[in-house]
Amino acid sequence: MQQTKFLLDESEIPTHWYNVVADMPNHPTPPLGPNGQPIGPEALTPIFPMSLIEQEVSAERWIAIPDPVREALSLYRPSPLIRAHRLEAALGTPAKIYYKNESVSPAGSHKVNTAIPQAYYNKLAGIKRLATETGAGQWGSSIALAGQMFGLEVRIFMVRVSYDQKPFRRSMMQTWGGQVFASPSMETQTGRAILAKDPANPGSLGIAISEAVEEAASRADTNYSLGSVLNHVILHQTIIGLEAKKQFAKAGDYPDMVFAPCGGGSNFGGVAFPFFADKAAGKNVRLVAVEPTSCPTLTKGAYAYDFGDTAGFTPLMKMYTLGHDFMPPGIHAGGLRYHGDSPLVSQLYHEGLIEAVAVPQLATFEAGVTFARAEGIIPAPESNHAVRACIDEALRCKASGEQKTLFFNLSGHGHFDMASYDRYFAGKLEDYDYPEEAIRASLANLPKVG
Amino acid sequence: MQQTKFLLDESEIPTHWYNVVADMPNHPTPPLGPNGQPIGPEALTPIFPMSLIEQEVSAERWIAIPDPVREALSLYRPSPLIRAHRLEAALGTPAKIYYKNESVSPAGSHKVNTAIPQAYYNKLAGIKRLATETGAGQWGSSIALAGQMFGLEVRIFMVRVSYDQKPFRRSMMQTWGGQVFASPSMETQTGRAILAKDPANPGSLGIAISEAVEEAASRADTNYSLGSVLNHVILHQTIIGLEAKKQFAKAGDYPDMVFAPCGGGSNFGGVAFPFFADKAAGKNVRLVAVEPTSCPTLTKGAYAYDFGDTAGFTPLMKMYTLGHDFMPPGIHAGGLRYHGDSPLVSQLYHEGLIEAVAVPQLATFEAGVTFARAEGIIPAPESNHAVRACIDEALRCKASGEQKTLFFNLSGHGHFDMASYDRYFAGKLEDYDYPEEAIRASLANLPKVG
Repeated sequence: MQQTKFLLDESEIPTHWYNVVADMPNHPTPPLGPNGQPIGPEALTPIFPMSLIEQEVSAERWIAIPDPVREALSLYRPSPLIRAHRLEAALGTPAKIYYKNESVSPAGSHKVNTAIPQAYYNKLAGIKRLATETGAGQWGSSIALAGQMFGLEVRIFMVRVSYDQKPFRRSMMQTWGGQVFASPSMETQTGRAILAKDPANPGSLGIAISEAVEEAASRADTNYSLGSVLNHVILHQTIIGLEAKKQFAKAGDYPDMVFAPCGGGSNFGGVAFPFFADKAAGKNVRLVAVEPTSCPTLTKGAYAYDFGDTAGFTPLMKMYTLGHDFMPPGIHAGGLRYHGDSPLVSQLYHEGLIEAVAVPQLATFEAGVTFARAEGIIPAPESNHAVRACIDEALRCKASGEQKTLFFNLSGHGHFDMASYDRYFAGKLEDYDYPEEAIRASLANLPKVG
Repeated sequence: MQQTKFLLDESEIPTHWYNVVADMPNHPTPPLGPNGQPIGPEALTPIFPMSLIEQEVSAERWIAIPDPVREALSLYRPSPLIRAHRLEAALGTPAKIYYKNESVSPAGSHKVNTAIPQAYYNKLAGIKRLATETGAGQWGSSIALAGQMFGLEVRIFMVRVSYDQKPFRRSMMQTWGGQVFASPSMETQTGRAILAKDPANPGSLGIAISEAVEEAASRADTNYSLGSVLNHVILHQTIIGLEAKKQFAKAGDYPDMVFAPCGGGSNFGGVAFPFFADKAAGKNVRLVAVEPTSCPTLTKGAYAYDFGDTAGFTPLMKMYTLGHDFMPPGIHAGGLRYHGDSPLVSQLYHEGLIEAVAVPQLATFEAGVTFARAEGIIPAPESNHAVRACIDEALRCKASGEQKTLFFNLSGHGHFDMASYDRYFAGKLEDYDYPEEAIRASLANLPKVG
């Protein structure tokens, strides 16, 4: 029997996270405060514990994973690396395809990898409650689970369109003890102000972040927790790529190309950055961030300072952005709807060290169904972006005869996204390229800096 | 870090299934035909391939698993054996709790273990289509996936109440290419006759079986596929218990008690029968089938010959039964609603070699939430029955101070059952003990035999 699964024991869970800052050719751009000047770590203390702020600004290459965090991660880690023999056969490609199966976490995606350390560090700091936002619901589920594991109350502002489309994601959060509010909500000043103007506002990740940050900033017992974008979040996610490298060593192989979905950037950074370390050391490996054409941050956005949220509560971060008042179309299934992107991912992309591609919605679902019929697992719509880009490359290999080794992150399963698959099968999903003039309009509202 | 996961490599997937018939003190009772006489294997050829019929009547202890079946099973097998340290701590019990995590299959339950070999043997026999029934949807999903793997068309009659309650199970079957009909349906004479009398009939597993058998019996290119009850189905499921025994050996432990949900019996038989082999050889191990009080087949039914379906198409089987026209209450969440039970499980229970317990619905959900908050995974409502019985025993151990080793089958996850969890949290689920007089009434309609 040919080997398909490359497994690690719990004892092989990495002992350190990898910090890409140590290998970047240029130092990361600093976040700016309301006065346009770089902010110090102390500006973040109202919403984050110092241990996470230290990780946020660290330039150390390796950061130790505390034992209780490794222990908690062992709930589902290490995750398998799978050789997709059946998908290769279905495509008739000479390429070798591998995927990391992050859908094995109880919440169904990679997001738990950072939810656990965030809950742990907040608990250590004496915090009682976490406030956060969630879009498609994967992050909210993850932080609800992690909060339960460490005895923290968790309050989740869920983008209204997802809240309505995905009632069972909400039930899942509640099963783990989380409290869920449709955002914009009546719980915060931000939410009340938006609802006063537009009671039917479908919400956005930017609005939900504003609500959660407002709550965290206004209560001493409450901190904020973010599921992507920030440096410490990506740091925690590097456990994916670090495990994958151990597993590729066991497989006696190494990827020519690495694909991951890219919304806020932690999915992509988590799997790709440990390979970037090899690239920085001279290894030939291509790292490809895959985003939707309906929210084309890297491929169509501006590289500029912008707010992380809609209301402008957050520091300004230099990143690819579609403008903080970008409103993603309600027709788009799944996550990857954030207006900005990780500053680290943005800087590496700006410097030409990583690649990005945007794929249209229907093609991603087609790829997901092809994958599901070959490999069994039904991917999350976000993951389908990486599946699509990887299949496209595998088909190019078929045409050229190249035997490349391709690797993608299957970041989550689609069990809570079957309504989107239904709409796809019924011909009710559409492609949507975010219009150039709409991008120009929201970019015109970028804050003026310096 | 204390070890929680006991993993096997794909090369350790068992090479043979275990047939409990070889170790039973008495030969199994034969199925009877319409004339009340034992039927021969040839009576089953209109709906099953000969290879499965041979397994159905075999008394060989070990039956080889074909290589393509092991290869296909490696899609998700071997499944992990998990030591539930966190649940033990949450309960404060000195008992050691282990569970086999069958939720890792792409369809989310153990049912794929028999769907794969059934699809394989039918494909070998030149069959083009499979017809089957599904209750909660786990079996339908599994056979849709397996049909896709071996290039068979799959038609699934889904109990209407589940079809309506679980639209996303249907979407899942469709993603793998299955065709799904609400049962009773207009596709068969059986369905049309029932709907003519009662257009709002909520369906039952017995009716859906009648529809699928009718379709299989009336078309040469179509066979029938059953997800539980029959000997060959339980045979295929023994891979669970066989793997578990290898994993307990690695853990240096052995269960005092084994718990599994029991509806048609393949879940229980699959995990418990390989341990029965040890029990037959003198080992002290208790095997406990757990059923709902709303469908108390083993604990309240009669041990008698009855039809496997509602319409009376199937041979008569000697089993514990509530009567083939038993209609389970629509309020009951999840599966385990079959009126009968596996003849093998029934005979062993009748002879006092295994145990059975019935648990009420609310207590099963309470146990499931306790489990989810400790171990992460949200169990299927069926699995919650085993979780409940295991937790009850762990709490008895807490009271007595006994350090028993307890083992249960986490047969599936609850990702498609969150509506039931919602109703549980909202206080809308009820306990329901199937009334004694209703059982007496349906048992009065048992066929007269001999």
